[in-house]
Amino acid sequence: MNYEERLREVCVSVVGTDPEAEERAWARLDQLTKPPRSLGRLESLAARVGCIQNTGHPDVEHKAIILAAGDHGVVSEGVSPFPQDVTWQMIANFVAGGAAINQLAATVDAELWLVDVGVARDITDFEGIRHEKIALGTQNMAVGPAMTREEAARAVMVGIGMARDAAAEDVRLLGTGEMGIGNTTAAAALTAAYTGADPVSVVGRGTGLDDAGVAHKAQVVARSLAVNDAGALDPLGVLAALGGLEIACLAGVVIGAAEQGICVVTDGFISGAATLAAVRICPPAADYVLPSHRSVEPGHTVVLDALALEPVLELDMRLGEGTGAALAFGIVDAACQMLSGMATFDEAGVSKESAD
Amino acid sequence: MNYEERLREVCVSVVGTDPEAEERAWARLDQLTKPPRSLGRLESLAARVGCIQNTGHPDVEHKAIILAAGDHGVVSEGVSPFPQDVTWQMIANFVAGGAAINQLAATVDAELWLVDVGVARDITDFEGIRHEKIALGTQNMAVGPAMTREEAARAVMVGIGMARDAAAEDVRLLGTGEMGIGNTTAAAALTAAYTGADPVSVVGRGTGLDDAGVAHKAQVVARSLAVNDAGALDPLGVLAALGGLEIACLAGVVIGAAEQGICVVTDGFISGAATLAAVRICPPAADYVLPSHRSVEPGHTVVLDALALEPVLELDMRLGEGTGAALAFGIVDAACQMLSGMATFDEAGVSKESAD
Repeated sequence: MNYEERLREVCVSVVGTDPEAEERAWARLDQLTKPPRSLGRLESLAARVGCIQNTGHPDVEHKAIILAAGDHGVVSEGVSPFPQDVTWQMIANFVAGGAAINQLAATVDAELWLVDVGVARDITDFEGIRHEKIALGTQNMAVGPAMTREEAARAVMVGIGMARDAAAEDVRLLGTGEMGIGNTTAAAALTAAYTGADPVSVVGRGTGLDDAGVAHKAQVVARSLAVNDAGALDPLGVLAALGGLEIACLAGVVIGAAEQGICVVTDGFISGAATLAAVRICPPAADYVLPSHRSVEPGHTVVLDALALEPVLELDMRLGEGTGAALAFGIVDAACQMLSGMATFDEAGVSKESAD
Repeated sequence: MNYEERLREVCVSVVGTDPEAEERAWARLDQLTKPPRSLGRLESLAARVGCIQNTGHPDVEHKAIILAAGDHGVVSEGVSPFPQDVTWQMIANFVAGGAAINQLAATVDAELWLVDVGVARDITDFEGIRHEKIALGTQNMAVGPAMTREEAARAVMVGIGMARDAAAEDVRLLGTGEMGIGNTTAAAALTAAYTGADPVSVVGRGTGLDDAGVAHKAQVVARSLAVNDAGALDPLGVLAALGGLEIACLAGVVIGAAEQGICVVTDGFISGAATLAAVRICPPAADYVLPSHRSVEPGHTVVLDALALEPVLELDMRLGEGTGAALAFGIVDAACQMLSGMATFDEAGVSKESAD
């Protein structure tokens, strides 16, 4: 069986969550010692995780962020102010514990699972990272497909495998994160292809482009869509033509989390594009997704609208790495502990509101 | 010296933060291994706490939420659907660990310091709570002043004393929280008096009023402002006439935090009204305040606008107790660990962006 066939087999096995399980979570929420619904979105988050875990006492104590890295052939078009070497240099920084995600993951007691699916340099001597390299970066999507369908499907299967490993280790909350110079360009192309949005509306500054750089990036995205005849492609075909190996891996994390019944907190724009790929390839996976934050990258709002999901946080961030997911982990954890640990009015002997 | 004189003595000793300390924090932030400013508001929060602590390596590991409780004479006007007994019943729930704030404080490893400044029942047999009762609830502000100036100043001094105790125990991050049936009505009256806003614009559903209840509450607020001739009062006079003992205590927590150089994360609408009282009584205290979230109570946005401060979270919450402060503690902690623990580009050997 090739990778595409394996992926198809996983997708048909994924089932959405049970609406009655969410109603049961809400029934418990409304008995807890607080005015009904007074914790707003915190209650919605608790109900969602309660539904995913099919319990009124959800537990997300064991948390992990899967941070996938890969390089992008499209950087040869000059779409990033940072050199491609920053991808592997930042992985060294992740391994050494000096990056933003190391600090933020530590504050919420989340493990960081690093995986190389496509860094453009041999880093097999790096320890503390899973080595699943499929290629030394993607091809330049502005002249042809970034990946073959088999490469893309294989990268998705790596992500599914990691979600299965997480389930085996009893991880109850997964997060996504990525590193890859050039990957906001890939995310923009995927978003435009999946939603029909104009390239200009989904392209942003990435790591720090100026106005001319943004305009050039939009042209590169438009050319990539045209060269690959994106409108004629199926969801896996779009991911292969315009995605990245780390993006495909994260799409696999989302699908794998859904397969395993684990809630997955997605990071920013690139993770969002991966999530869009995942739910186009495997629609029931959407039920397991909580977007962590709204990136300032304009394409992310297009992604969130297409997913019809509201993020937990809006902090004007645009770093990636899983930093938004780590911050939202704290809120989701609090939501679950609230639902699981609070007393009911009866248990606490507190009077309810009067009926008049 | 009476309480008002003691309070005045504290206020003249409070100094604002040093803008150069904030610039030094930003200088370090811009050397860390991330595109400059890519962590958005997380960087602003880190810079603010770094400024307050006058260091590029801020530390907020030791955290405490001060939850002040008091009752309100204005409940006799029928402004809450919950009976007044819920105030002491909820304190019993806090002591037993069954309330929302117990769960949320635990997730961020924050201590909960309970204080009774004005509950309308003898609860001296409750353990695990500081007993500083000044009166068995306030008077009905719709017929005259809720408190005397001395009562209000004494309640403020209780809060200042607790902030001093926090400093003595090396608490590095303080939060505010409250419990008091009827206190959204007091908060609305204070907000209208301090900002000149129309009572109708600052009144909301509180614990669960219907439209007629909200209209009645606005009338009660308007009557309270008129009866007490609020426009002619100084800031402490406004607090005494329209506030609550727990609100005055929290105003003291804000002033005391500023006196001690501790960052204070304020909760929702009632804590916001207390903060507004604090900065009108002692303007430099504003430099030490981080609002945690934007409550759905409409008056809270009026408060935040008057303070010219942006909250960290918007989660449609309206519970109080310090629940918003607890959630924001996690974000502020992450911001400080980011600034303190990340590597610089030089330390990590990561290439910077090209100049062209």
